Amino acid sequence: MKVTVPGHARHFRTVTFDVRRNAVLLIEQRLLPHEFQIVPARDFRQTARAIQDMIVRGAGAIGATAAYGLAQGARAFRGRDPAKFLRHLETVCETLKAARPTAVDPVNAMNCVRQAMRVGETVEEQQALALAAAEEFANEDVRHCEDIGRHGAKLIRNGMNVLTHCNAGWLAFVDIGSATAPLYAAQAQGRKFHVFCDETRPRSQGATLTAWELAQQGVSHQIIADNAAGHLMQRGKIDLVIVGSDRTLGRTGEVANKIGTYTKAVLANRHGIPFYVAIPLSTIDWNLKSGFDIPIEERHDSEVLGAWGVLQSPEPTPGGRSRITHHASRAYVRIANPTSGALNPGFDVTPAELITGIITPAGIFKPKELWPRRRRLGWTGS
Amino acid sequence: MKVTVPGHARHFRTVTFDVRRNAVLLIEQRLLPHEFQIVPARDFRQTARAIQDMIVRGAGAIGATAAYGLAQGARAFRGRDPAKFLRHLETVCETLKAARPTAVDPVNAMNCVRQAMRVGETVEEQQALALAAAEEFANEDVRHCEDIGRHGAKLIRNGMNVLTHCNAGWLAFVDIGSATAPLYAAQAQGRKFHVFCDETRPRSQGATLTAWELAQQGVSHQIIADNAAGHLMQRGKIDLVIVGSDRTLGRTGEVANKIGTYTKAVLANRHGIPFYVAIPLSTIDWNLKSGFDIPIEERHDSEVLGAWGVLQSPEPTPGGRSRITHHASRAYVRIANPTSGALNPGFDVTPAELITGIITPAGIFKPKELWPRRRRLGWTGS
Repeated sequence: MKVTVPGHARHFRTVTFDVRRNAVLLIEQRLLPHEFQIVPARDFRQTARAIQDMIVRGAGAIGATAAYGLAQGARAFRGRDPAKFLRHLETVCETLKAARPTAVDPVNAMNCVRQAMRVGETVEEQQALALAAAEEFANEDVRHCEDIGRHGAKLIRNGMNVLTHCNAGWLAFVDIGSATAPLYAAQAQGRKFHVFCDETRPRSQGATLTAWELAQQGVSHQIIADNAAGHLMQRGKIDLVIVGSDRTLGRTGEVANKIGTYTKAVLANRHGIPFYVAIPLSTIDWNLKSGFDIPIEERHDSEVLGAWGVLQSPEPTPGGRSRITHHASRAYVRIANPTSGALNPGFDVTPAELITGIITPAGIFKPKELWPRRRRLGWTGS
Repeated sequence: MKVTVPGHARHFRTVTFDVRRNAVLLIEQRLLPHEFQIVPARDFRQTARAIQDMIVRGAGAIGATAAYGLAQGARAFRGRDPAKFLRHLETVCETLKAARPTAVDPVNAMNCVRQAMRVGETVEEQQALALAAAEEFANEDVRHCEDIGRHGAKLIRNGMNVLTHCNAGWLAFVDIGSATAPLYAAQAQGRKFHVFCDETRPRSQGATLTAWELAQQGVSHQIIADNAAGHLMQRGKIDLVIVGSDRTLGRTGEVANKIGTYTKAVLANRHGIPFYVAIPLSTIDWNLKSGFDIPIEERHDSEVLGAWGVLQSPEPTPGGRSRITHHASRAYVRIANPTSGALNPGFDVTPAELITGIITPAGIFKPKELWPRRRRLGWTGS
């Protein structure tokens, strides 16, 4: 996606590979939106650390990072001994997998790369195949998002106000994003619309990442407090809701996503506003039989009790605009009463009845249509 | 209410009067929850400035502050000339009124005091009557909150989880509060329950003021992100919702309150959870015919784009507890993308159909029962 760095606009992916220096290049997401930096991970251990330390986050993005990290590790091997090479690859895979042990995307991505390497006969051939497979994995992530955008763009008409929650944008994937894909596709088709970004407390991904993306792409938008969506819907100011999903149950059509998603679905339902969920097929869970079986992570209470930002005077610069600040100093402030604790569920589950449609790379489906179409949608059971 | 200052627990009202020094004593609410200070306003101009600068806020609290400020101004007059005294009183009233020109409570409070002064024949008598009337006004505010508590406490059973939004606590009144009154009354009756405080972005009054109050009173509570209430209701973890109101329409039963109240009412309705609004009778508006006629204040976008807090490391002290910090340095951090703006409606309107009952000093009523009982509830129309 296009990012305006001081002086000029350039196209960036969230994760790319520098062949000459054998480095994985990552947007340092922990600095956004106050600072834009591309950081190189110079060997597979640095790449693993970048996943672990959340320089890169989001299912699609960490999958591609692991794929590149495996190619990077393979290419760093010096020698021609296939047995030694294999042992080295095992170390690389284990290191990358351990960086985010509960995530499934890095594992799937590395399996793809290992599969592709099998046809290589020499170490050198396998090294070349690894890089090609990693590039293909990243490109496929982009194509899936493009397909989501192509299907979802039909929902967006001129003059619409669209609400989104959290960040299922290009920063969570290699490019384009899931929930944001229909917006970018509609924009490319010349349609004019306005986006309300839920702040998305406690981690504020809407106010930081989604708002930053939309600003970079020149999409008209405003941030709102999570409390404001109901009022705006009541006053007729929201026409459509699009969110992402961390896990979608193929059997029931239930959607687990960032905390607050369920609330927005209930509100949209009350006001007769279409509520869509945009997902790559890899987030469909074909096994679980009920949303109540999805484990809801309880996160650290410091997220609720305070906030991260950049120290400044509360008055914005004239017109509310300022340039991207380089080397801005980030700080955590404790907002809440110092003698109080917090409860911090990270996700919630939205039932199928509240979801108008699920936008996938293969088309838009009603939640209950996923299971009947499971073969087409990547189900591999029997 | 009881506040634990280092060393011991003491009873404080939000606003009191020091007769010997002719000073209005106020809890400096802008420093809460990080610092507890009682500040004296030493003359009526300082008292007006305290209202203007929001050292004291909340309808009941600023009403009592204005009543005391008028008595303070009257008592500062030296001389026996009734005409000069009258001109002086006009200056005092105008100064206090101008401190918060759109608020109705200071005006009503000062009218009460002026009315009571009429029976005095000398300046000295009138000065004494002014102080007595101001004390009576403050005591009546407390009695009304006690009455709300007495009626509302019946709703709270042992083991309940109660959700509240924003701060309609004792800091917004002279003591006890409106939405918090049933909690404190139930606690006094020995009942055990747990309170979830909505953070209440963007100004975080739940995380700061309500949580601080509940901690001081020893009420079991946790702060939650505004996004989390829907999930907790879905999982059966909320049994009752009690909120306050800035304006309640006597004709329709609609309730205007802090942004996000409507969302919680919609969620409670979906889950069959009782939703109550606690109000003093002074917040009933008998004139407006529709909630859509209530002006919704658009507040400054810096509230949404950042947050106020105290700089610290994100890791809380062991056990998540720390003492009240004195002389903590407050800071504003910009959370949001620097090139994005925000939309910041301050209030929303909840329709009568979503409200189980309205807890008043005169009893609990269904929203539609206010108008038929208007004479009993203080309506003065014809």
